[in-house]
Parts: sequence; C-alpha cells; structure tokens
Amino acid sequence: MKLDHIGVVVNQLDEAIALYTSVFGMRVTHRAGNEQLGIVAAFLDVGGSELELIAPTRGDSMVSKFLADRGPGLHHVAYAVPDITQALADAKAEGLELIDEQPRIGLHGVPIAFVHPKSVGGVLTEFVEHA
Amino acid sequence: MKLDHIGVVVNQLDEAIALYTSVFGMRVTHRAGNEQLGIVAAFLDVGGSELELIAPTRGDSMVSKFLADRGPGLHHVAYAVPDITQALADAKAEGLELIDEQPRIGLHGVPIAFVHPKSVGGVLTEFVEHA
Repeated sequence: MKLDHIGVVVNQLDEAIALYTSVFGMRVTHRAGNEQLGIVAAFLDVGGSELELIAPTRGDSMVSKFLADRGPGLHHVAYAVPDITQALADAKAEGLELIDEQPRIGLHGVPIAFVHPKSVGGVLTEFVEHA
Repeated sequence: MKLDHIGVVVNQLDEAIALYTSVFGMRVTHRAGNEQLGIVAAFLDVGGSELELIAPTRGDSMVSKFLADRGPGLHHVAYAVPDITQALADAKAEGLELIDEQPRIGLHGVPIAFVHPKSVGGVLTEFVEHA
C-alpha cells in the first residue's frame, strides 16, 4: 500500500496553488473538476506522492459543509492499491463502513472509493487503483 | 520537496496500530515517545512515505486539546527538505508564521520544525531534514 495523495480543502484554488508553488516550490501536475460534486482540484507533485487541493465551486458543493464546520485544512488520505475491488472487499470483511460500495471514476480518471472516517479513526480514507 | 509523513491523532495507540496493520496490511517501522509532550507514536511504512499515529499519554498532552476539539483524525503533514534551516528562512521570508523558529529534534532523532496552520490554509505543516 502506497501513499497516493493527501486531500486538502481550500477556500480558493488559485490562492492555494500560489502558496504551495511559490513558498514550497511544488509543481502542479494536473487540474480537474467535477461539476456534479461542485469542486475544482489541483494535484501537486511531492516526490512521488501528490497533494490534492480541493475548492468548492458553489455553496452546496461536496466540501462546503466541511469548510463551514472546520474551515480549510486536511480532508482525506488516499492509498494506491493494486486491486480496488479486493481492497473494498477486505475492508468490508473487517467491518469497515464503506462510503462507496463500488469503485467510481475519480478526478484522475481511475477507479477510487472512500471508506467512512468513523471506521478509520476519524480519517476519511480513499483507495485508488492506477492502471 | 518530498512527502515524508502524515500525522494522525488517535485515542489509543495499540488499537490504531491493529487497525492499520490488520485491515490495511501496513507495517510498523518505528515507535517512539516524548514524555515532555505527553505523546507516544508509531510510524508505519506506506510505500516510501510514513503514517505517524500519535496518542496522548496524559490529559494535558500536546494532542489532548486537538482530541477534545476535533476528535481523532488527520493532524499534520510533513515534508522532507534538504536543508531545514533554509526552508524555515524561506518560509519566514514569504511571511509564514513559524511555530519553531529553530529546528528541534523530533521522534525520529532528526531535525524538525512546524509552520503554523494559519499560514498554510489550515494545515499544520512540518519540515523534516533527514541525514
């Protein structure tokens, strides 16, 4: 299991990108959005893993409640797994509550699925299967 | 800049280790504690980066307020830098507020320093300099 990326919720994407690129010297590798979820995101390279900056595009976006409740900050952690269907089956067999019972296509165009934070010590946990 | 580790605050260290080793198949590489800060921690390998699980050893530990305010969950993100003194100087020059003006020795026995989350979009950010 490899640390794939960390998801960070931000108020405004371009401001956040400016911080991480100018102050920390990171590089944006990919930008994407999901209109249905009301989010835009940028992925920055951090030596093999990535930092995913996620901002809302409207008031009822997927991250709006998080921002209202907690403010910007660390949102989730994603692990790359060789077989996401197997990873979900294993997690379910161990009693973990899945948010996504079946993988869905994420912002990178590859299968992802989330495990509920209440099953993982308060950490919203994502599996990613790269080709 | 490389993603060194993610810090996760947990209520009870052995329970958290059991979750990550049995369900996710991770392996503990290192355990350490800091009596002054009132914490114990375990580091687990996640494909070159690490997951740091941090638990309090007493009610007034470094993480007790975090646990009381937010519950267990994602706590900080640490980046490996080639020169931590330079990284701190650069961050300060960019107007970031440092928690540690000078590096101190962390649980791995190498220099670390924290940048205030209010300067990094709500993310408690750590620099680590490995030998």
